[in-house]
Amino acid sequence: MRAKKSEEFSEWYSEVVQEAGLAGYAPIKGFVYLLPYGYELWELIRSHLDRRFKETNHSNAFLPLLIPESLLRKEAEHFKGFTPEVFWVTMSGGDQLSERLAVRPTSETLFYSTFGKSIKSWRELPVLVNFWNSALRAEIKSTKPFIRTSEFLWQEGHTLHATKEEADEEVMRMLNIYKEVIEEKLAIPVIDGYKSELEKFVGALYTTTLEAVMPDGKILQMATSHNLGQNFTVPFEVRYLGPDGQMHYAWSTSWGVSWRLIGAVIMVHGDDRGLVLPPEVAPTQVVVIPIFYSDAERESVIEKCREIVSRLRSSGVRTHLDDRTEYTPGWKFNEWELKGVPVRVEIGPRDLSEGKVTLFRRDELKRSRFEDRALETAVKELLSEVQQNLFRRARELLNSKISEARSMEEFVRVLEEKEGFVKATYCGSNECELRIKDLTGATVRVIPFEREPALSRCIACGSEGSITAYFGRAY
Amino acid sequence: MRAKKSEEFSEWYSEVVQEAGLAGYAPIKGFVYLLPYGYELWELIRSHLDRRFKETNHSNAFLPLLIPESLLRKEAEHFKGFTPEVFWVTMSGGDQLSERLAVRPTSETLFYSTFGKSIKSWRELPVLVNFWNSALRAEIKSTKPFIRTSEFLWQEGHTLHATKEEADEEVMRMLNIYKEVIEEKLAIPVIDGYKSELEKFVGALYTTTLEAVMPDGKILQMATSHNLGQNFTVPFEVRYLGPDGQMHYAWSTSWGVSWRLIGAVIMVHGDDRGLVLPPEVAPTQVVVIPIFYSDAERESVIEKCREIVSRLRSSGVRTHLDDRTEYTPGWKFNEWELKGVPVRVEIGPRDLSEGKVTLFRRDELKRSRFEDRALETAVKELLSEVQQNLFRRARELLNSKISEARSMEEFVRVLEEKEGFVKATYCGSNECELRIKDLTGATVRVIPFEREPALSRCIACGSEGSITAYFGRAY
Repeated sequence: MRAKKSEEFSEWYSEVVQEAGLAGYAPIKGFVYLLPYGYELWELIRSHLDRRFKETNHSNAFLPLLIPESLLRKEAEHFKGFTPEVFWVTMSGGDQLSERLAVRPTSETLFYSTFGKSIKSWRELPVLVNFWNSALRAEIKSTKPFIRTSEFLWQEGHTLHATKEEADEEVMRMLNIYKEVIEEKLAIPVIDGYKSELEKFVGALYTTTLEAVMPDGKILQMATSHNLGQNFTVPFEVRYLGPDGQMHYAWSTSWGVSWRLIGAVIMVHGDDRGLVLPPEVAPTQVVVIPIFYSDAERESVIEKCREIVSRLRSSGVRTHLDDRTEYTPGWKFNEWELKGVPVRVEIGPRDLSEGKVTLFRRDELKRSRFEDRALETAVKELLSEVQQNLFRRARELLNSKISEARSMEEFVRVLEEKEGFVKATYCGSNECELRIKDLTGATVRVIPFEREPALSRCIACGSEGSITAYFGRAY
Repeated sequence: MRAKKSEEFSEWYSEVVQEAGLAGYAPIKGFVYLLPYGYELWELIRSHLDRRFKETNHSNAFLPLLIPESLLRKEAEHFKGFTPEVFWVTMSGGDQLSERLAVRPTSETLFYSTFGKSIKSWRELPVLVNFWNSALRAEIKSTKPFIRTSEFLWQEGHTLHATKEEADEEVMRMLNIYKEVIEEKLAIPVIDGYKSELEKFVGALYTTTLEAVMPDGKILQMATSHNLGQNFTVPFEVRYLGPDGQMHYAWSTSWGVSWRLIGAVIMVHGDDRGLVLPPEVAPTQVVVIPIFYSDAERESVIEKCREIVSRLRSSGVRTHLDDRTEYTPGWKFNEWELKGVPVRVEIGPRDLSEGKVTLFRRDELKRSRFEDRALETAVKELLSEVQQNLFRRARELLNSKISEARSMEEFVRVLEEKEGFVKATYCGSNECELRIKDLTGATVRVIPFEREPALSRCIACGSEGSITAYFGRAY
């Protein structure tokens, strides 16, 4: 690692991504590819989410990649929102197509014209489906792996309900699942609430969101969950026969998280030595490194390491033995620190003779020694401590990055001083939100579910303030 | 189910796919979507394969969807092979792109220009990577879900090696993994061997394949594994520093299976009542159905069913309780038979009073009764019996569909009589292979690894026959 996190945050980020073996730049502008380590991280995040989706009766399914333009146009606002970012297929083989096909920017329109069409009666509701796929939206700004790319891995959930109330419940259920996984597994605290009218999903009735602050003070949207009302079910004619014998339009939701979550993990927890992974999502939770100074010592040390690996694996810890002979222990320490492995076990001749093991924790860069026979307990406790410590540190970061402003002047000043979230009150109009954005670059990131009291009159127009929101400059 | 498998095979297939809730036609020609049941089946097949890939040290990763035309052109034959089927992205938002982008028909070219580029020395070889994604190849013929669609789910493995011998070994290792999963989990016997020059993958040194026969006598290619030689590593300049201090071009392989495997399962095992799933890949292995004639009986029957579900789940059986009240037991029997669930448990008042359970096996449509306390053992034995019986039946199908021909006349006749594989000898030239194809519609499906003795002189040109191959009409 060359760049320092505190000095050149952006270079540092890009260096971690590549040096830790997470991702690389593809030979096409705006696209990245994932190396096995990055993909394993995604697989672990996915499995945490997937389990919760299934526990709440959602099923996975598959929708095609290409969407006819006429279908995408059916919901006008939705189409307008995505049209500048759509990649269009216009040819197949040597032939011009009679209708352009959009490469999936999101699958609402396909969902309603497939799953939505088969609904007949209220007995078939709700329909609860999720799709793990990639979506494409052309990015014109410079590429930042996981954060800003023209293709991203994500999941998109789509559901149909009989009533608005059921759709409301679904929106909150999924937002809370996201919050639980992000806070408990990724160790990143978030602020939850509504998006403003200007920031909501194009075509939604309302959007709920989870927002986190990054160490550079910019805000990252972590997850969104939308109540789409009947905005899609009406144009797509998704109707059901109610218990009252009448036809009704269904209500719908959609919700998603993307590999941005990996970007957040890198930014929030990483340090000057590289990645620091929360144990719950670390592909390798423990790396075991043999240390010996002579061939005589070699055999017994390696044997002990193998025993330790097998004991840890038996107790459910994802453990890797680094027994490569072409690298020194010091070189290996660096590499596994760069890769953010939460706990390192070092075994040398002295540990062997004293019946001890040396554990190194990545988050605090500290060693401690334990009785060999207590290894499993010690490792598990340490993993849990690292997990909690990362969350505690991230919460401190979040708290240190929340300010309040009672006037535009104060807003500009505190944003300048420490970026992050600025809590401020405005009248709730699009005009004032836009004016704040023009003057400061900050937008409404989230309006807390629990309405907070006004801090002042509207900082933009001076009329009575009705909404106290968290503003910030977003990624 | 309306169509009969033996009478209208193609209509029967299409009906099973839709009525069993596997897939549906998307609102764009040539594309299908997967319903949860179909996707769950794919998830199970995927997990069987994925485990074996990981056991043999392969890692999953992610490559972008779009490929610049210039990159696809780098290996000329490869490009020529795919160019009639490529979907081209030519616009992004409202702008014409300066270079066309191919929607991934396969990822060789991207793999070499990303993973291939980072190789420096022999110490980094082999590189063993797999990608679970979808690929797009425009189909002009009519759509057949899982078998012929313009987009398909698959996995593509890509590997780099120091020597041809290591690449050869990898090709066979992966073909054998496919064979094991297809025979042991999908219960479909295959014939393995080489593809002919005309039928090999465009750009490959040689292609190995697994081929199966369907009940209509057509041949389905189940899996392929290619040694790509240095055909890609030379144009893409994938070189490494050898232990000899010299630079060498790497050797590479690729291998893949697609959701065709689902199509094969439907065709080979299904019957007039619908799908018949091998227990190893059945999303639901056992469905439990309560039977009662009065409200008085209802409670104790349901309670018993719940107990059975929980006992079966505890012993690792994927079990579903169908306690819907709006349908009769008979209606449920039909539905779960249509969905191909291997074993059904029926619990009625008489079973309860006698301490018995009634089991119904889907493959043979037969009931038998067991002591309640022996339930777990009985179910597991029955599942294993169903699995073996399906394989045995499929092997009989295969054996009944292999003929031999010693002249073109005999070839035409036996192919006419019973389709399937026709074993015949030819001289091995492209000309004679094409002549056989023109005259019969059959192509070389597979040339067995163990060379078989000549049955005759070349059936096309009469010269000395050197290759005895399995011919057939392919899907």
